[in-house]
Amino acid sequence: MNHEPINLEAKFACFSDHWSPRVVAELNDTQFKLVKAEGEFVWHSHADTDEAFIVVSGALDIEFRDGSVRLEAGEMFVVPRGVEHRPVAREACRLMLLEPKGVVNTGDAGGQLTAENDVWV
Amino acid sequence: MNHEPINLEAKFACFSDHWSPRVVAELNDTQFKLVKAEGEFVWHSHADTDEAFIVVSGALDIEFRDGSVRLEAGEMFVVPRGVEHRPVAREACRLMLLEPKGVVNTGDAGGQLTAENDVWV
Repeated sequence: MNHEPINLEAKFACFSDHWSPRVVAELNDTQFKLVKAEGEFVWHSHADTDEAFIVVSGALDIEFRDGSVRLEAGEMFVVPRGVEHRPVAREACRLMLLEPKGVVNTGDAGGQLTAENDVWV
Repeated sequence: MNHEPINLEAKFACFSDHWSPRVVAELNDTQFKLVKAEGEFVWHSHADTDEAFIVVSGALDIEFRDGSVRLEAGEMFVVPRGVEHRPVAREACRLMLLEPKGVVNTGDAGGQLTAENDVWV
């Protein structure tokens, strides 16, 4: 069995593009993805799954149709399935996303920010 | 909808006992649990699920029958289902565990370190 730790700093150093999740681990059917965020993402929802955001550095606002939550380093939030949301990084932000394998970053919205899925780093 | 961030430092400040996981969030059927670890846990395995460890502060060794992995702050590891392991914290360690709801901390081993399950903080 592989006994190497997964070092998040080292994994973040392997890529630089924004809003393009990189998978670093799987727990059953759930994937751990690292994302570098900057600027506004698109409004979207995921009909079939919750989505967890853990901010590693910087800050992320997640906007909802009825409010918003601001996450700073060491804070997390779970967006329930079906809830429309828009992540906005007003400063550079590094975060870990958790969601089942197969979930596309733009959910039901599509568009030019849709990233290739299941890319490991 | 509740728009409060989950602040991990604040959650860790709510308890002090060791090896007693506190749930802070759920993603579908997966729970995020915080644990304060110190000393040796018991050898055990979980037949039906992987288990993810993310070290927040301090360091954790996870021993296997064929080796071990040392995790420091910002590092993670996923123990595959069925693999016997023993977490050992040679210094005080704070970590996040991820596993499905219902998983007991001592797995197949039981014993006095078995903690009450599904305790939220």
